Amino acid sequence: MEKNRLEAFSDGVLAIIITIMVLELKVPHGVGLEALKSVGSVFLGYVLSFIYVGIYWNNHHHLFHSTRRVTGAILWANLNLLFWLSLFPFATAWVGENRLAPVPTAIYGCVLLLAALAYYILQSCIIAQQGPNSLLAAAIGRDLKGKVSLALYLVSIAVACWHPWMATTLHVLVALIWLVPDRRIEKALHPRTDPGGQAGHES
Amino acid sequence: MEKNRLEAFSDGVLAIIITIMVLELKVPHGVGLEALKSVGSVFLGYVLSFIYVGIYWNNHHHLFHSTRRVTGAILWANLNLLFWLSLFPFATAWVGENRLAPVPTAIYGCVLLLAALAYYILQSCIIAQQGPNSLLAAAIGRDLKGKVSLALYLVSIAVACWHPWMATTLHVLVALIWLVPDRRIEKALHPRTDPGGQAGHES
Amino acid sequence: MEKNRLEAFSDGVLAIIITIMVLELKVPHGVGLEALKSVGSVFLGYVLSFIYVGIYWNNHHHLFHSTRRVTGAILWANLNLLFWLSLFPFATAWVGENRLAPVPTAIYGCVLLLAALAYYILQSCIIAQQGPNSLLAAAIGRDLKGKVSLALYLVSIAVACWHPWMATTLHVLVALIWLVPDRRIEKALHPRTDPGGQAGHES
Amino acid sequence: MEKNRLEAFSDGVLAIIITIMVLELKVPHGVGLEALKSVGSVFLGYVLSFIYVGIYWNNHHHLFHSTRRVTGAILWANLNLLFWLSLFPFATAWVGENRLAPVPTAIYGCVLLLAALAYYILQSCIIAQQGPNSLLAAAIGRDLKGKVSLALYLVSIAVACWHPWMATTLHVLVALIWLVPDRRIEKALHPRTDPGGQAGHES
Repeated sequence: MEKNRLEAFSDGVLAIIITIMVLELKVPHGVGLEALKSVGSVFLGYVLSFIYVGIYWNNHHHLFHSTRRVTGAILWANLNLLFWLSLFPFATAWVGENRLAPVPTAIYGCVLLLAALAYYILQSCIIAQQGPNSLLAAAIGRDLKGKVSLALYLVSIAVACWHPWMATTLHVLVALIWLVPDRRIEKALHPRTDPGGQAGHES
Repeated sequence: MEKNRLEAFSDGVLAIIITIMVLELKVPHGVGLEALKSVGSVFLGYVLSFIYVGIYWNNHHHLFHSTRRVTGAILWANLNLLFWLSLFPFATAWVGENRLAPVPTAIYGCVLLLAALAYYILQSCIIAQQGPNSLLAAAIGRDLKGKVSLALYLVSIAVACWHPWMATTLHVLVALIWLVPDRRIEKALHPRTDPGGQAGHES
Repeated sequence: MEKNRLEAFSDGVLAIIITIMVLELKVPHGVGLEALKSVGSVFLGYVLSFIYVGIYWNNHHHLFHSTRRVTGAILWANLNLLFWLSLFPFATAWVGENRLAPVPTAIYGCVLLLAALAYYILQSCIIAQQGPNSLLAAAIGRDLKGKVSLALYLVSIAVACWHPWMATTLHVLVALIWLVPDRRIEKALHPRTDPGGQAGHES
Repeated sequence: MEKNRLEAFSDGVLAIIITIMVLELKVPHGVGLEALKSVGSVFLGYVLSFIYVGIYWNNHHHLFHSTRRVTGAILWANLNLLFWLSLFPFATAWVGENRLAPVPTAIYGCVLLLAALAYYILQSCIIAQQGPNSLLAAAIGRDLKGKVSLALYLVSIAVACWHPWMATTLHVLVALIWLVPDRRIEKALHPRTDPGGQAGHES
């Protein structure tokens, strides 16, 4: 039950974050096509951030799927993740309104980096509670995807000041890496479809 | 359980979309009846979009009623639908503030079209997972309503540049078509009330 | 299950309505006590509307407590109620920013009236589905409170143009009438605590 | 079930409060680092208020964990708490935009004080319904933390007019006191981990 309420609260916050970002898509003053073009870069930023929040929601879902008990540490690690995700609307609007200016792009990268770190901390808290032999720990494995993402975010912040468009390319790239749903957890949790799975476990 | 969380998240996003549209109903500066009249067209746009989101919520509800397992494809098809629905507040405000100017009206039609396409994709994903003999596939049948809607949206976009009020009439018309709840699914799922229903199925 | 999702969606919309009203409480430009006073009337309007939404949430809760099946009519009657409630932030802000100007006060009364009518329609739909001998029908009885409220709203709209403060007094009065939780339904549903209750029913 | 709906509604309101605070983090007009610095104090205020709402959500969760039936008094005490919490975005934005000006800082303290009083009232309502020998009453005990917080809020309001930064230090201090999760309730509810626990109770 504890877990259900944490999931419901997180879903609520993520649903609001994903939706209030669209409030930054200000209604243009004119009525022509050029007025529409003026919101183009804000729109593209919205698309990218929408995909990122979707990815986090999806992975959050997998993460808690295998969790039974919520400790105080998990609860605050989850709030920490929600905090950084709540900065997406701000960062998205700033970078979108300024068409890839260096500082906003770097800040966008920082928010992505800190959200990824918060996710990593949350994941570690859950694994710590379940033990190193848990399904989740096995599913995550060496967490190559997570580590590569962190590295790419760091690079994106470094290059943002000189080549903001390259930083943004990296942000799109990481999103594409994660768009592929995290089959590791799915596989570990549903070994029926995996002929090599031997670990017996309840549903 | 997976399904419950997807439904809860979608409900959250739809509830927020339906509610933040009202934020575009800016408080008028004056205090007389003419001040009220100035928000009239925004209000009518809000009414139409409220009905559209209500229809989508209602149909979304029917769609997932017969779904048991949520795959990665269904999850992203659902997020895709939520994305296009999240553009309703923007499109509604733009068309409402400019009293049926051609470009905003065409954009409103585009958002309606893309949301309808996203709904069609989601429906196809669910049917693909359940198989062609599923209740949902039988309930949808040839999906005449869906196809007529797509055609009318296309026509509305085409005529918006010359006769915006005709495009808006089409948008109202499609809403009226869908306001009638989709009895096909209800019938297929509850054949007790349908004397001709023979397929045995659990609840 | 149908009912649960309708309740969850309504809760989401009501939670958002109650919360975005506070967005109209704009941060004052000064930092002194007189700056605070400038938001005083908006604040009082917020308090009243918060109480109204709280009352609707509470009564909505009682209404669906005794409902099992949700028909298409109930679903749209519920959306109709949510629509009128969604206009509370607009009406509250307009009346609050103009300190009881005649037209905004009358409009506030109209929104209250239409929300009350929508609630009445929803209640009638639920009773129509459950039959005239249902617990809910017995609990509502002649619905004196509902009818008095409608009459007071009508009077408030009529007097708003001449004595806005009297209209507002009526709005506060109706809120006080309803602040007393609707014990009729509670009594009918939990007759154990009512020595005169004889109707046997499952929990 | 009653309780579930109250929890879901409260979660929704808290999720929205925590998220709309970020809307006050206005996108700066420039694109340089100094533009970022201009939102620094609003950001710090957001962090503090985010932590406060997180603490309230966490404690709310513990409070209702041991509650079975929701009475009218509990319902309205809960709405009262949500009301004062809903003023956090306003108070946070005002104090953040004016970098610790005396009146906004005092108002922030008042909102904290009134939310704490509302929480105390809610807690008392729940204990009154459960009886003085309930687990919750035992878990709360003399409620030292609650009383110290109220005292510190009062002091903060008093000193805000002369030393706003000292008042803010007190606000941070109280947050730190509560950041430690309330182990009293957890202990009383899960006495298995507490060798001294003797009260037999169902899970």
